[in-house]
Amino acid sequence: MKQFISVKDVEDVKLLVRKALHYKANPLKDSTLGLGKRIGCIFMNPSMRTRLSTQIAAKNLGIEPILLNAGSEGWALEFEDGAIMNGTSVEHVKDAARVFGKYFDILAVRAFPRFQNKEEDANELIIKQFIKHSGLPIVSLESSTLHPLQSLADIITITEHKKTERPKIVLTWAPHIKSIPHCVANSFAQWVNAWGEAEFCITHPEGYELSKEFTGDARIIHDQKEALKNADFVYVKNWSSYKNYGAVECTDTSWMLTQNHMKVTNNAKVMHCLPVRRNIELSDEILDSENSLVSLQAENRIWSAQAVLSEILKG
Amino acid sequence: MKQFISVKDVEDVKLLVRKALHYKANPLKDSTLGLGKRIGCIFMNPSMRTRLSTQIAAKNLGIEPILLNAGSEGWALEFEDGAIMNGTSVEHVKDAARVFGKYFDILAVRAFPRFQNKEEDANELIIKQFIKHSGLPIVSLESSTLHPLQSLADIITITEHKKTERPKIVLTWAPHIKSIPHCVANSFAQWVNAWGEAEFCITHPEGYELSKEFTGDARIIHDQKEALKNADFVYVKNWSSYKNYGAVECTDTSWMLTQNHMKVTNNAKVMHCLPVRRNIELSDEILDSENSLVSLQAENRIWSAQAVLSEILKG
Amino acid sequence: MKQFISVKDVEDVKLLVRKALHYKANPLKDSTLGLGKRIGCIFMNPSMRTRLSTQIAAKNLGIEPILLNAGSEGWALEFEDGAIMNGTSVEHVKDAARVFGKYFDILAVRAFPRFQNKEEDANELIIKQFIKHSGLPIVSLESSTLHPLQSLADIITITEHKKTERPKIVLTWAPHIKSIPHCVANSFAQWVNAWGEAEFCITHPEGYELSKEFTGDARIIHDQKEALKNADFVYVKNWSSYKNYGAVECTDTSWMLTQNHMKVTNNAKVMHCLPVRRNIELSDEILDSENSLVSLQAENRIWSAQAVLSEILKG
Repeated sequence: MKQFISVKDVEDVKLLVRKALHYKANPLKDSTLGLGKRIGCIFMNPSMRTRLSTQIAAKNLGIEPILLNAGSEGWALEFEDGAIMNGTSVEHVKDAARVFGKYFDILAVRAFPRFQNKEEDANELIIKQFIKHSGLPIVSLESSTLHPLQSLADIITITEHKKTERPKIVLTWAPHIKSIPHCVANSFAQWVNAWGEAEFCITHPEGYELSKEFTGDARIIHDQKEALKNADFVYVKNWSSYKNYGAVECTDTSWMLTQNHMKVTNNAKVMHCLPVRRNIELSDEILDSENSLVSLQAENRIWSAQAVLSEILKG
Repeated sequence: MKQFISVKDVEDVKLLVRKALHYKANPLKDSTLGLGKRIGCIFMNPSMRTRLSTQIAAKNLGIEPILLNAGSEGWALEFEDGAIMNGTSVEHVKDAARVFGKYFDILAVRAFPRFQNKEEDANELIIKQFIKHSGLPIVSLESSTLHPLQSLADIITITEHKKTERPKIVLTWAPHIKSIPHCVANSFAQWVNAWGEAEFCITHPEGYELSKEFTGDARIIHDQKEALKNADFVYVKNWSSYKNYGAVECTDTSWMLTQNHMKVTNNAKVMHCLPVRRNIELSDEILDSENSLVSLQAENRIWSAQAVLSEILKG
Repeated sequence: MKQFISVKDVEDVKLLVRKALHYKANPLKDSTLGLGKRIGCIFMNPSMRTRLSTQIAAKNLGIEPILLNAGSEGWALEFEDGAIMNGTSVEHVKDAARVFGKYFDILAVRAFPRFQNKEEDANELIIKQFIKHSGLPIVSLESSTLHPLQSLADIITITEHKKTERPKIVLTWAPHIKSIPHCVANSFAQWVNAWGEAEFCITHPEGYELSKEFTGDARIIHDQKEALKNADFVYVKNWSSYKNYGAVECTDTSWMLTQNHMKVTNNAKVMHCLPVRRNIELSDEILDSENSLVSLQAENRIWSAQAVLSEILKG
C-alpha cells in the first residue's frame, strides 16, 4: 500500500479486514516488522481515539511514533500555493512536509475541513499537499472529506457482529448543535459500498444529501422510520449540510435515535464513531444498552491502524 | 492493589515505603515486570512532577506510558450522568473511560476539584466515573480531595530524614493569592494518620478547618508559633476554606514561614509539594536552606509511583 | 562536553562536524551509548524541527527523551531571583530546575528572549538559571541570544556543499512582519567565525547591526547587492533591531531575496533555518529551486543534535 487516504488505496477490503482481525488475535505477531522506522503523527485538530490507537498500533509493529500538535507545539501552517505569508501562518506546508520527509518513514496527518472553501475541502487540498511535498507514504488520521481508519474499524466491527450473509445497514443522520464535517459519513458510505456485502441505505432530512462521489448507489430515504425497518446495523452520525456547505439546517430532535426508533429494526446493533453528544445525537438508553457497539468500534481502531501500517511498511 | 486513589487502598503503608526505597536503590530491579502493558495518563489539569515522575516510574517497570491532555489534545469531557450534551463538553466520561478500558492496562487520571459543587468534589465524582466505566485499575494523579502519590512520597521523605522514633510533624497553612484545592493537605493528613509514627498537629487560621474525614485525630492548633514548637518536620501548604468552600478568607502574610518562625522548631526540616509561590507561601531563605526537603520530595515521586505501579501490576 | 549553549562550549568545530557526518552515514552506530539515560526537553516556546530532531537524535543514541511544554502542560515559570510570586508565574525556575536535576541526566531547554529587558536577554538569564539550579549538562534548544544546534547543522550543510577551500558566505537580513529574535543570526555568525574556513560578510539595513560579541570581525556591508557578489552561500534571516531592541524599523521589501538578487552570486546555495515566511523573507522561486538547502539544513539538525548529545554523554 502506497498511501491510505481513501478506500481506493485498498486493493481488497475483505483481506484487510481479515488482516486486522488477525492482529486482534495476535497483537505482537509482527512486533519487529517496523523496527528502526518512525511514523510522524501530525495533529492539526483534537483527537483522542485516533491519537491513542495509532500510537498503540505503531508500537505493536515496532514503529516509533512521534507526535506533533502542529498549531500549538509547532507552527501554524499555510496551505495556499504562492501565498504571501504576511498573516497568522508561520510556515508553509511545502517546507514543513519536506522536513517531515527527512525525519520520518511514514507520515500520518489529521486535518479537518476548514469549511472556508467547499471546493478546496472537496479536493483534499491539505492532505494532498502533505503527499506532494513529503514524498512519504501518508496515512490519513481524518482529512477534509474522509476518515478511512474509522471506516475500516467500522467494517471490522460489522464483520465481527453480522449474523447474516448480507446484513441491512442504515446510516442515519442525527441532530447536533455544531457544524460537523462530512468525513465519517462519507467514508462509511464509501467503505460499505466498496465492501459490498450489505444492503445499504442512508436516511437524512432533505437538504442533507452527501456527495454522490461517496454514497454511490446507496438508497437515500428521507423517512427515517421507513429506512430503519429491519436494519441489522444502524450507524448514527451527524453531518452539516453539504449543499449549503457547513450549514446546520435541521434541528428536529426527533431524528435522535431512541429505543422507540429501534422497534422497527431487526434488534439492530448501533454504531457511532465517537465522540458522541449524549442525548443530542444518541440517547443514553441506546448508548448504554447491549446493542451499542461504540466501544468495540473504538477498540477496533487499534487493529484497523495496525493492519494499515503493516501494509504501508510492506510498501 | 486494585486501585490507588487513597491511603485506604494500601494494606501496609510502611511496607509500601520500604518497597519504594528499595526501588530508589535499584531503579531497574523490576524492569521487565510491566512489559507489554500500557498505562494511559490522562491530564485534565497542568502537571509537572506528576507527569514526569509517573512516566519515569512506568518506564522503569517496562510499562509503556501514553499521555493525553484531555481538554486540549482530546475532547472536553462531560461528567454528569444523564446530561443533555448541548454545551461545551464534547464527550461523556462514560464513553471516554470505556475506550480507555480497551486501550490500556492501567489508567492514571489527574482531575482537580472544580469548586462548583462541594458535595460533588467531596464524593470524587470524576475519578469515580473513570473507575466505574473503564473497568481498569485507576491510579490517582491528584483528584478532587486527595493526592496520594504525593503523600506517599512525603512519607518516604520523612522516613529517610527522621532522627527519632516518633517525630513531631506540623502541617501549617500558608498564604496564597488563589483558591487552592485541599488535596495535598487532606492527603498528607490522611497518610500521616495511617502511617501512625508521628506526633501530628495541624495549624491554620480559624475558618480553614479541613474535613475531619482526613484529619482524624490530629491536633488542631490555631496559634502557629505554639504549633511549631519542637517540630521535626514542618509541611507548608496553602488551601482555601473548606467550610466556605473555595474561599480565600485569610490574607495574613505572617503565616508565611520564615527563618524567624523556625526558631521554636527542633531545627525542623521543611516540606512542600511544589509548585510553591516563593515569598508568598514560603520564604526564599527557607527554600534555599539546607532544611528544605522540597527537591527530595519531588525526587521521591518517582519511587512513590514506581512502588504503586508495581503493586498494581501484581493486582 | 559539559554543556552546549554556544560555540565556546565546543573544542573543535571541524571535529564535531565530522562526528555529525559520521552519524549521518551510520545513525545507529552508538545506539546503546545512552541506554538508561534520560533527556528532559523543556519547551517554553513553539518548536518543530528542534522538537523532532532532538527526539530522533536522542533515540538514535539510546537516550530516552521526555518532553514538557512548560507553560501549557506544566506551570508558568518565574525567573527573577527574590521575586515575590504574587503574579501569573506559578513556579520558580530554581525549584523546577532542581527537580529536573533529579529526574534527568541531560536537560535541553528552549527559551526565546522575552524582549522585556535587553540586558537580561543578553546575559542569558533564563538558560543560566537552568544551568545553575539543575546541576545537569544543559543543551540549548535556542536561547535568548543563540541557537547553536541550528548553527552546527548549518556548518555541516556548508561543509557538505562547498566547492572551494574558502567559500564566500553572506548572511543577509530579510524583511519580516514581526519582531524576531537575533539568535539564529548571532549564532550563525559566531559559528562561521569559529569555524574559520570562509570569507564571511553580513549585510543588513543600517540600524540592524548585530552585537559585535557574535559578529566579531565579519565585514558589514549595507549594500546588499555589493555584499552578494560572488557569494557561494547566502544565509537569509530576519532579525529585529538590536540597538533599538526588538523594533521593526525597516520594511523595505527589496531586501527579500529573489532570483534577480542571485545574478551577482556565484550560483549561490541559499540557506534559512526555517520556519520561513514565503514571499516575505524569501521568494517561492528560490525556496523551490535547486539552490535551496533549507530542507537539508533541517535534516542535518538530527546529526547536529546527535553529535552534541554524544559528546555530552561522554562528559
